[in-house]
Amino acid sequence: MLALARTRIFSASVRRAATQSRLLRTLTSADVERLQAIVPAEAVLATAAVGGTADAAELEGFNNDWLGKYRGRSQVVLRPKTTAEVAGILRYCNDERIAVVPQGGNTGLVGGGVPVGDEVVLSLRNLNKVRSYDEASGILVCDAGCVLEELDNFVAERSHVMPLDLGAKGSCHIGGNVATNAGGIRFLRYGSLHGSVLGLEVVLPDGTVLDNLSTLRKDNTGYDLKQLFIGSEGTLGVITGVSIATPRRPSAVNVAVLGVPSYAGVQRAFGLTRQRCGEVLSAYEFWDASCMGAVLGHQALKHPLAAEYPFYVLIETSGSNKAHDDEKLEGLLEDLLETGVVEDGSLAQDASQIRRMWSMREGIPESLGKTGATYKYDISIPIPVLYDVVGDIAQ
Amino acid sequence: MLALARTRIFSASVRRAATQSRLLRTLTSADVERLQAIVPAEAVLATAAVGGTADAAELEGFNNDWLGKYRGRSQVVLRPKTTAEVAGILRYCNDERIAVVPQGGNTGLVGGGVPVGDEVVLSLRNLNKVRSYDEASGILVCDAGCVLEELDNFVAERSHVMPLDLGAKGSCHIGGNVATNAGGIRFLRYGSLHGSVLGLEVVLPDGTVLDNLSTLRKDNTGYDLKQLFIGSEGTLGVITGVSIATPRRPSAVNVAVLGVPSYAGVQRAFGLTRQRCGEVLSAYEFWDASCMGAVLGHQALKHPLAAEYPFYVLIETSGSNKAHDDEKLEGLLEDLLETGVVEDGSLAQDASQIRRMWSMREGIPESLGKTGATYKYDISIPIPVLYDVVGDIAQ
Repeated sequence: MLALARTRIFSASVRRAATQSRLLRTLTSADVERLQAIVPAEAVLATAAVGGTADAAELEGFNNDWLGKYRGRSQVVLRPKTTAEVAGILRYCNDERIAVVPQGGNTGLVGGGVPVGDEVVLSLRNLNKVRSYDEASGILVCDAGCVLEELDNFVAERSHVMPLDLGAKGSCHIGGNVATNAGGIRFLRYGSLHGSVLGLEVVLPDGTVLDNLSTLRKDNTGYDLKQLFIGSEGTLGVITGVSIATPRRPSAVNVAVLGVPSYAGVQRAFGLTRQRCGEVLSAYEFWDASCMGAVLGHQALKHPLAAEYPFYVLIETSGSNKAHDDEKLEGLLEDLLETGVVEDGSLAQDASQIRRMWSMREGIPESLGKTGATYKYDISIPIPVLYDVVGDIAQ
Repeated sequence: MLALARTRIFSASVRRAATQSRLLRTLTSADVERLQAIVPAEAVLATAAVGGTADAAELEGFNNDWLGKYRGRSQVVLRPKTTAEVAGILRYCNDERIAVVPQGGNTGLVGGGVPVGDEVVLSLRNLNKVRSYDEASGILVCDAGCVLEELDNFVAERSHVMPLDLGAKGSCHIGGNVATNAGGIRFLRYGSLHGSVLGLEVVLPDGTVLDNLSTLRKDNTGYDLKQLFIGSEGTLGVITGVSIATPRRPSAVNVAVLGVPSYAGVQRAFGLTRQRCGEVLSAYEFWDASCMGAVLGHQALKHPLAAEYPFYVLIETSGSNKAHDDEKLEGLLEDLLETGVVEDGSLAQDASQIRRMWSMREGIPESLGKTGATYKYDISIPIPVLYDVVGDIAQ
């Protein structure tokens, strides 16, 4: 909820050290031939340098991250369609000391999903089937390469909602979300993936498949090993399947954007919002004037308020009764304006206004990327001192 | 929510095997002397058999479980007041190959917290201080021996609520709740301890203190090792401190008890309740006519409905606006009665009626215990086949 963006250079730097060391060797055309016996020919994308026919341009999207900040020089991308193929690839590469980087939707901002050298890119994008869905319990079991938004649409048709959502939803994979322990904008309402992920299927580096795909809301048999993979960033194994609890979809959604004079006001408004909106509060996001400037400068969006403010807050409620939620949110806004905690506010009148208000928040990373070189930080910091980081870094 | 009672003979049976093996030795009066150098004299309760002055009767409560089903013959109970003392005890007993059983509130129903032989009982009951509480974020850090109900009262005074609740709340310890991954009656609303526990302090068997007491809602630094201890039942270490997120306390609570003609009806009513009450639904419990008979036979409680039914359901809503919640619950009840899914219903009119309705549900384990010898099962089973267990076991 209050994270700014991701930084996690750990796995990239470890891989860089490893690929530069003598522990690993460079892949050759002989390896490509042997890999073609493990996965079907169409699953292998190899350049002429390693005996393939692919143009280097075809590998561009796999070698570069979304912000154009990290760049690898992999000559081979593998796109397996089954867990068994993933296991075969990892077993071979482990035996042969060939570096592998697992890649989901490649929407990460910290280079965790792109090669730092010539690692084999193991793309999960063709491992993208829903395996089962139980409408009574809302429990979804799917391949790791399913795109988050497609899953959300799938469960929406069945009156449920994915317990997480983030700006990259149109491309990011559920496997990557789990591997990075993504928080996202529904965290406030549906909590951590440590609570909502019920089971995982993971291929360990030596090719062993760990099948832990429980579909029980509570499973106390043995140690909860799957938890270790949540947030492990691919360092312990490659997630190939996910079992996740999806809550019932709220039938009413409201969104408001507020203009706030200070960071102290952002905090006070948060306290009042939690109190007044209680169980229907589903998101509370803030950004400052410079983020707003970047977004309005790079996206076709109109300023939601009549004047500029040092801070902006987006509040979302999601509930089962529109009239009740309207009353709660309107009461809160009156309170916030009367007490001067907030100086202006705008309530979305329909679904397209809701989308535009969210685009503003979600467009920040991309807009900043277009503004110039940016460092991205995904930091969790106690709320009272959170915004101090901006001043500290600016120094 | 749908668990019946606990059974987890794993740790007891492992301990039984270990205490009977030559891997462990029996504690002597020399050990007691040395333990008295590790913890203050008043923290040691030892019988004459091992050089102490305590009467065997004083150890009764530590040697017997709550239902009188499991019985040990420990001669020493240690009641440390600090994590350092716990570490000293474990280091000594590990070096000396003396068996230890950690004990919280001793409210378990499966013998996990009582000795099976002559193990040293390590009682956490004097490790019972709140360490810190942040009212803005609702994050509580406390000793493992704090009683759940006392913590709930503590946070209630600060407008928050513990994310779990169970019948044994008056005696059970938060450390034991975490060690057994207790679900309890608020699971439906606040989810799993894997999501709400933010950090743990654990003493490993060799006395190493693992300090993982994060107070961040999301902490992605390294692997989430604390998760392994949640539900590990004391087999990996002794939990001495807990950091846990407490939600804002709902200002409105409603409870209803329904009479339902069949288990199919219990399931249909669950679906409708989730749909109509959505975000304010905080508990959905059911029991059958024989449980009702046992409770009414052993507790001073009146039948809540005018007639007998094969199944009873308790619904609780907890929200931030009483009028809104009343409307949602009344609408649901009308629907359930009109469609015949439910044949009768009673809505609690005040706090004391709410308490009485809950006593009915919470009194089941104790009443069954008084009825005769009972086996307890804490099982997680898919909802459609859950009640089949009762028939299968009866056979």
